[in-house]
Amino acid sequence: MAVATTPVNVDRQLAWTAAGPAPSPFPAALIAGSANPRLANRVERALAIRLAACTTERFPDGEVFVRIDESVRGLEVVLLQPTSPPVNDHLIELLAMADACRRAAAARIVAVIPYFGYARSDRRDGRRTPIMGSLLADLMERAGIGHVITLDLHTPAVEGFFRIAVDNLTAVPVLADTLRARVPSDAVIVSPDLGASHLADRYATILGLPVAICHKHRISGNHVSISRVTGDVAGRPCVVIDDMITTGGTIVECVRTLRAANAMPDITVAATHAVLVPGALRRIASAGVRKLIVSDSVGVTGEPVKELRPIVVSVAPLIATAIRRLLDGGSLRELA
Amino acid sequence: MAVATTPVNVDRQLAWTAAGPAPSPFPAALIAGSANPRLANRVERALAIRLAACTTERFPDGEVFVRIDESVRGLEVVLLQPTSPPVNDHLIELLAMADACRRAAAARIVAVIPYFGYARSDRRDGRRTPIMGSLLADLMERAGIGHVITLDLHTPAVEGFFRIAVDNLTAVPVLADTLRARVPSDAVIVSPDLGASHLADRYATILGLPVAICHKHRISGNHVSISRVTGDVAGRPCVVIDDMITTGGTIVECVRTLRAANAMPDITVAATHAVLVPGALRRIASAGVRKLIVSDSVGVTGEPVKELRPIVVSVAPLIATAIRRLLDGGSLRELA
Amino acid sequence: MAVATTPVNVDRQLAWTAAGPAPSPFPAALIAGSANPRLANRVERALAIRLAACTTERFPDGEVFVRIDESVRGLEVVLLQPTSPPVNDHLIELLAMADACRRAAAARIVAVIPYFGYARSDRRDGRRTPIMGSLLADLMERAGIGHVITLDLHTPAVEGFFRIAVDNLTAVPVLADTLRARVPSDAVIVSPDLGASHLADRYATILGLPVAICHKHRISGNHVSISRVTGDVAGRPCVVIDDMITTGGTIVECVRTLRAANAMPDITVAATHAVLVPGALRRIASAGVRKLIVSDSVGVTGEPVKELRPIVVSVAPLIATAIRRLLDGGSLRELA
Amino acid sequence: MAVATTPVNVDRQLAWTAAGPAPSPFPAALIAGSANPRLANRVERALAIRLAACTTERFPDGEVFVRIDESVRGLEVVLLQPTSPPVNDHLIELLAMADACRRAAAARIVAVIPYFGYARSDRRDGRRTPIMGSLLADLMERAGIGHVITLDLHTPAVEGFFRIAVDNLTAVPVLADTLRARVPSDAVIVSPDLGASHLADRYATILGLPVAICHKHRISGNHVSISRVTGDVAGRPCVVIDDMITTGGTIVECVRTLRAANAMPDITVAATHAVLVPGALRRIASAGVRKLIVSDSVGVTGEPVKELRPIVVSVAPLIATAIRRLLDGGSLRELA
Amino acid sequence: MAVATTPVNVDRQLAWTAAGPAPSPFPAALIAGSANPRLANRVERALAIRLAACTTERFPDGEVFVRIDESVRGLEVVLLQPTSPPVNDHLIELLAMADACRRAAAARIVAVIPYFGYARSDRRDGRRTPIMGSLLADLMERAGIGHVITLDLHTPAVEGFFRIAVDNLTAVPVLADTLRARVPSDAVIVSPDLGASHLADRYATILGLPVAICHKHRISGNHVSISRVTGDVAGRPCVVIDDMITTGGTIVECVRTLRAANAMPDITVAATHAVLVPGALRRIASAGVRKLIVSDSVGVTGEPVKELRPIVVSVAPLIATAIRRLLDGGSLRELA
Amino acid sequence: MAVATTPVNVDRQLAWTAAGPAPSPFPAALIAGSANPRLANRVERALAIRLAACTTERFPDGEVFVRIDESVRGLEVVLLQPTSPPVNDHLIELLAMADACRRAAAARIVAVIPYFGYARSDRRDGRRTPIMGSLLADLMERAGIGHVITLDLHTPAVEGFFRIAVDNLTAVPVLADTLRARVPSDAVIVSPDLGASHLADRYATILGLPVAICHKHRISGNHVSISRVTGDVAGRPCVVIDDMITTGGTIVECVRTLRAANAMPDITVAATHAVLVPGALRRIASAGVRKLIVSDSVGVTGEPVKELRPIVVSVAPLIATAIRRLLDGGSLRELA
Repeated sequence: MAVATTPVNVDRQLAWTAAGPAPSPFPAALIAGSANPRLANRVERALAIRLAACTTERFPDGEVFVRIDESVRGLEVVLLQPTSPPVNDHLIELLAMADACRRAAAARIVAVIPYFGYARSDRRDGRRTPIMGSLLADLMERAGIGHVITLDLHTPAVEGFFRIAVDNLTAVPVLADTLRARVPSDAVIVSPDLGASHLADRYATILGLPVAICHKHRISGNHVSISRVTGDVAGRPCVVIDDMITTGGTIVECVRTLRAANAMPDITVAATHAVLVPGALRRIASAGVRKLIVSDSVGVTGEPVKELRPIVVSVAPLIATAIRRLLDGGSLRELA
Repeated sequence: MAVATTPVNVDRQLAWTAAGPAPSPFPAALIAGSANPRLANRVERALAIRLAACTTERFPDGEVFVRIDESVRGLEVVLLQPTSPPVNDHLIELLAMADACRRAAAARIVAVIPYFGYARSDRRDGRRTPIMGSLLADLMERAGIGHVITLDLHTPAVEGFFRIAVDNLTAVPVLADTLRARVPSDAVIVSPDLGASHLADRYATILGLPVAICHKHRISGNHVSISRVTGDVAGRPCVVIDDMITTGGTIVECVRTLRAANAMPDITVAATHAVLVPGALRRIASAGVRKLIVSDSVGVTGEPVKELRPIVVSVAPLIATAIRRLLDGGSLRELA
Repeated sequence: MAVATTPVNVDRQLAWTAAGPAPSPFPAALIAGSANPRLANRVERALAIRLAACTTERFPDGEVFVRIDESVRGLEVVLLQPTSPPVNDHLIELLAMADACRRAAAARIVAVIPYFGYARSDRRDGRRTPIMGSLLADLMERAGIGHVITLDLHTPAVEGFFRIAVDNLTAVPVLADTLRARVPSDAVIVSPDLGASHLADRYATILGLPVAICHKHRISGNHVSISRVTGDVAGRPCVVIDDMITTGGTIVECVRTLRAANAMPDITVAATHAVLVPGALRRIASAGVRKLIVSDSVGVTGEPVKELRPIVVSVAPLIATAIRRLLDGGSLRELA
Repeated sequence: MAVATTPVNVDRQLAWTAAGPAPSPFPAALIAGSANPRLANRVERALAIRLAACTTERFPDGEVFVRIDESVRGLEVVLLQPTSPPVNDHLIELLAMADACRRAAAARIVAVIPYFGYARSDRRDGRRTPIMGSLLADLMERAGIGHVITLDLHTPAVEGFFRIAVDNLTAVPVLADTLRARVPSDAVIVSPDLGASHLADRYATILGLPVAICHKHRISGNHVSISRVTGDVAGRPCVVIDDMITTGGTIVECVRTLRAANAMPDITVAATHAVLVPGALRRIASAGVRKLIVSDSVGVTGEPVKELRPIVVSVAPLIATAIRRLLDGGSLRELA
Repeated sequence: MAVATTPVNVDRQLAWTAAGPAPSPFPAALIAGSANPRLANRVERALAIRLAACTTERFPDGEVFVRIDESVRGLEVVLLQPTSPPVNDHLIELLAMADACRRAAAARIVAVIPYFGYARSDRRDGRRTPIMGSLLADLMERAGIGHVITLDLHTPAVEGFFRIAVDNLTAVPVLADTLRARVPSDAVIVSPDLGASHLADRYATILGLPVAICHKHRISGNHVSISRVTGDVAGRPCVVIDDMITTGGTIVECVRTLRAANAMPDITVAATHAVLVPGALRRIASAGVRKLIVSDSVGVTGEPVKELRPIVVSVAPLIATAIRRLLDGGSLRELA
Repeated sequence: MAVATTPVNVDRQLAWTAAGPAPSPFPAALIAGSANPRLANRVERALAIRLAACTTERFPDGEVFVRIDESVRGLEVVLLQPTSPPVNDHLIELLAMADACRRAAAARIVAVIPYFGYARSDRRDGRRTPIMGSLLADLMERAGIGHVITLDLHTPAVEGFFRIAVDNLTAVPVLADTLRARVPSDAVIVSPDLGASHLADRYATILGLPVAICHKHRISGNHVSISRVTGDVAGRPCVVIDDMITTGGTIVECVRTLRAANAMPDITVAATHAVLVPGALRRIASAGVRKLIVSDSVGVTGEPVKELRPIVVSVAPLIATAIRRLLDGGSLRELA
């Protein structure tokens, strides 16, 4: 698995002369949970702020133990923890860290949650289910979190589930930068369903490419539906984009539809969150995908597959910029 | 403006032998605000429960005055008030009624809000705006409302903005019943944008018709987009559906796109909420729409237009059934 | 309508050398809603702080749209919005602005509400009404407002409806300053009812004048009552004061009572809030009032009446001083 | 100290054939704190419901100990506790009882607080004081109290300090009934200040008597003021009424003013709450008051004074009726 | 692993003639999570109430999915879910079930949590840790749980972490009943540390046996400590009791101390919660424990060990009785 | 009663060159309630910060009156008030001070509560009691307190009753310093019950002494128990320690047990909180205690006893250090 080494600058402010991590020059503390230590280290370097000492352990019976090992009294604490799988463990750990900071008299607690688990549970559709996104928003506020920074939320409604400030950053510019050199100029950005069409528009605008959309189409009033693609893909290279990949099922179906529509066989896929369950990578590779570009919002897991080595673009500079502006009081609008 | 007189039964339970309004047989009180008195009266008759006496006035300076004129002590109170235009007045009136009932020791307050204003404000899209749907959910809970019943919500995320129970009923079956006799069997259900495609599917399933979707399509990466229709509409009669009509702009654009795609010129429109701003009806009529079927969730306003007299189907039986099951403890699932 | 041009200094600190609005020197943002733009501009000039860019619009269906056009991240935001008529629109706009600022990560939200609508709804008197003052206090806190600054509240109980800090400024000194040159030294300050007697005392103390009180007097136990005046008004010029004027009915009745008590016919009226409903000005003029002195807490509305042109004294310097001390951490006591 | 033995029926429903206390026929429990056991016993008899067993003790260091000695699981619990002196002890005891009931799974907790301490602290008047009435309302809600029933609140604003239902009963009818036989038909009801004038009106309406009001009158703008009486009292017997008596200072000053206005010397006083601090009774007696009629909302304390033995009228039947209607779901309006 | 088949009656009310599960006769629904299906089935049989249909699944990425498959509108819902390992998954599932029930308009939500995970995290001891017990209490209340029933809580402080009703049942009587036939009359009940001494007293009282306590003893002021036993154990059979066993470490150390004090080698262990991590059973067996009696509050896990087959006593009858009384409004005191 | 005059430095930072109280150099205000003015003055001197002017009075009817006489707008307010007897009065006064500061727009309110009343009420033990510690925590948070600093809490669970930061300082080092010169090197630290054993360990570690524990021991299963001591006390001087003394009963029983175990008769007692009820000192003296060392967390009350004059060690330097670090943002860990 290769991390893109080409400098991916979000904006100029990122080019800090980071001679090495130093204690925070702001009255703030940066604390990382156990969910994505590699990303945490990259953010640490990009910010040139040393991560505060923190112990996160699991007891033999699976209970999470958290201890903050530096004073956070009166500080603005930034917790960095995606709620990636195992999602429940990472979630409870995040809440535990917030509780510890609150009881240690932190002035304010900001949670940076690059991947926000359970975001797809945003409606009930007439069934007696929870709305997990709404429940988690409530629990996070209750645990003392006062501000959330996240990345390419699956659904914008999650912002409204909170009453506090939520900043939804986007990895599209950094992913698009990496795509630029890798796709020909006659490529088409393809959204695998209606839900991702807004995201596809963002890629298309940055890259100057047209958009096509795959979607299920109900032929008659009964429950039979077929996948169709809207937009011209015949004979063109396709870049399928999505916010996240879990089982790869959506991607695989989209690839099939594109092939049926005579798209060029060499298909590229880009997604912000690589929540790859076992077998997902192989499944995508088997469908014929040859390039996969993802961010490091989630530690990319799953057994490696020879034919498909994901290109991982780091969102650490983006997150570092967001944290820096947060502490400076600057605007986050252009990162969203 | 004609109210459909054909019996629109949601289910058998609605066929109550309502010899005339009687005091509630349940320990409950039904109270209507001033937003839609005609609907309130229809619900009163359908439920065969007398509306509780309530005074709603406006002071000369525009302040709302509310007084409940019967005891609601220990009762389950059902407030009926769509937050239709003037939305802010109807909203404050609803909150005032809830506050009055809470202070009068009502056991529980259920708000039936057939049209939920501000539901379109469900995201920020990176701007510094409020999320009105989320804010209003919070204010309603705070004013003592413990349960919300609404109808064809613009976005399902609104449910998640609440922490309390929300039942989102649908008028699609009653509107589809009315459509059935009025559209030929080769008609196509048309969704005017991606957001309403789920609603279109519901109509299509009930009526056994195919679906087409109009949507904006970005040709290249720049900001130029054109409207397209996906699905076969050439030479076929079209039924454009939507959850609500305000200015009529979306409908008009859809009609134009359908015509460009050679759909039959005689277009029918069906929508749950007729929030018709001045000029909307004329605009729709001018575009060539010849049949408009809406519910009475909102008192249909706007000056009458000779060429287009809306057919108004009452949702009172539906709402009455929901209230009845609510008080009986029955399931509302099949009404949603 | 004339705005008093004589310099009305509350205290020395107001005499800032305001060469022109500049960006705020404090980590704060001043944002004005649409309720009283003229007052907002006067406060802007008095404070020498530029109003932050903010868009407030109404959709065709009457829904309020608010967008803050500058970053307020980490700032102390001061919202300026009287909840004057149309009260419900201005109220929802205020709550929307607060929600927008909260979601944009403002550090703290202070609402300056020079006229606080619904303040008269402060009790139930054994009826099943809401207590709107209490409800609104709750809604404002809920929307994220953390501090309220208001002016000559109709009832001091409103402070207790809040759990947060409320500073109730008074316009009496600035109004009294304007009165000083306009009333003879044998004048009497008249309170039109018992509720305003405390206010009358404040005017009397500043101006060194005696007080008289009009009040309803129940002759016997039945429901017949007459208006009486306590205090010597015979042959003397009277200055009727009140906190607010809406229909003018109270003033008119007071004037009649004073005439019956042989007061001099040339009566002056002073009130903080000119919430003048259509016809109010004419009604007051017809009763014989010849001078009316009010503040600009509310944009003075109502058609002009030739015989009675209100003298409008600006409270902008007072509000500017309060905001300045708020940001400086100074005491507001002497402004209250 | 004599308790009036003439039957004081509030309404017919009170004439229960109470053969003796029985366990509650409603799913409810009546629990009395230690503040006024005599009143509790009278309510018990009037309601014909046995008081639930409850232990209230003080530890040697003054801490309150409360234990409910019967199951209240799933019951509507009615706590009876005036917050009379020692007010802080009785208040904490009330909160402790509520907490105990909440943790014992009571379905709902109603606090009957015949005398509501700290009600006079309802505003700040520009000083840095607490608003105790507002604070206590918040604490009571927080401790689990869901409904408050009180009696002749010093200020109606207290209702608005709560968000929950508050029923403010009045002892005026029962006190007026007792007055009826004791005052001649040419008597005048006298309010000792402006604040009690509303109460005076209620007495006057019931007894068919006129009203006079004592009030401070500021002669000129300086701080000198004199007491005056408005209304005809010369040569007539006066009944001074008030909601509560603590030191007796207000009464004594009123009596002096009445004498100066040539009222008949034999003055009667009636008040709901006899919060008599040591010396108060003697002070009132010395001023010449010869009849004092009070309720048993507070256990009348203070050393007995030979010349002035208060006539105590029980509000137990009134409270019993209120509780009964509360449990029945009836209206409390006519008791307020 | 053998479940004790001797009838373990808590009290007479448990001996219901349960011809087979039937729908709930109370307006209640019993819903079981996935943590301990065997216990749920036993409770179902003991209560003779059918478990409501409920779907609990895990998505491929580990997210919990919950759907209640029957109407719970207006019902008292009893959720049965120990938060045993994997504790975070079971906890989130419990919160999700509560959220689903709340949104489905359940009247009240009672959580029966036979084993309460994280209860040992009840203090900070001067470190910057969370207090997980307090945090979880808050989260549970927030998710809509209104009442908690649990069993032999590790620390009674957990009750105080909640503001709602908590009933802490005890399995000691049922475990003691099973012990009675299995220990000789000269046995000693041994608490392995000071924390469990209260529990030991309860066993001793029921069985009429003496108590001994193992505890660390600091010889001098330095950090060296030894384990000692207080009480006469020499030559006597010992029954070590505890509330829970996880790694078995505490038990093993206690056994060693008892041996050093010449207790009889054949040691019995009884504990309510068998949270046995891998290797725990073998470790306890190796230390020489020959009888282990536990409840089925947690599904007993861990690989079976030939020399030590735990005797599992069901707490289902106890829990069934508690639920029944809860729904009947009866007292739970004698089960606590 | 003698206050130890030997300098008791907690750490170097306490040795401020306090030429005399000066206004706070931090944006903070130090406000003392009426519970322990002597301690407040000592803290004032140790911190070299002038106490803010504040008026605390009692009305004739016992109601607390509080007024902050300096601006606290935007300041961090530190309230100093132990909730010592009369506990309810001091508690309500503390809540009133917090409410006053909140309404006066304090930025944050820290309550320093050296003695935390009601801390022993931390569990229900199966009875229908309140949990006062939990209730008070909730009330304090509700009144606006955002941080609590306390001293040698009776039970660490109290921290978990709060959701906010709680810092539990300890007086053990300063008391141990005073003990060092007064006890021989062969002394034993004795905990009078199991609950204080953790405290005994802290003394023992500092002084390099061994520990003994008195505890009740149940001989057989019936309710007879005897007191025993674990550890070697025969012929040795004993120092009985505890967190607080109220009636002295526990101390007296411990002394008897020690004598029965042949400890040396000259027994020393040390405790943080001297909540001495009338007669307590005499009771302890009569039992033979000859030295009593306590802190000034509570104003030592009770009539003086000739044979036993308590040595009072001030915790003012400790509290001053804690406040200073709080305002500086420093760590409080080493004071806990």
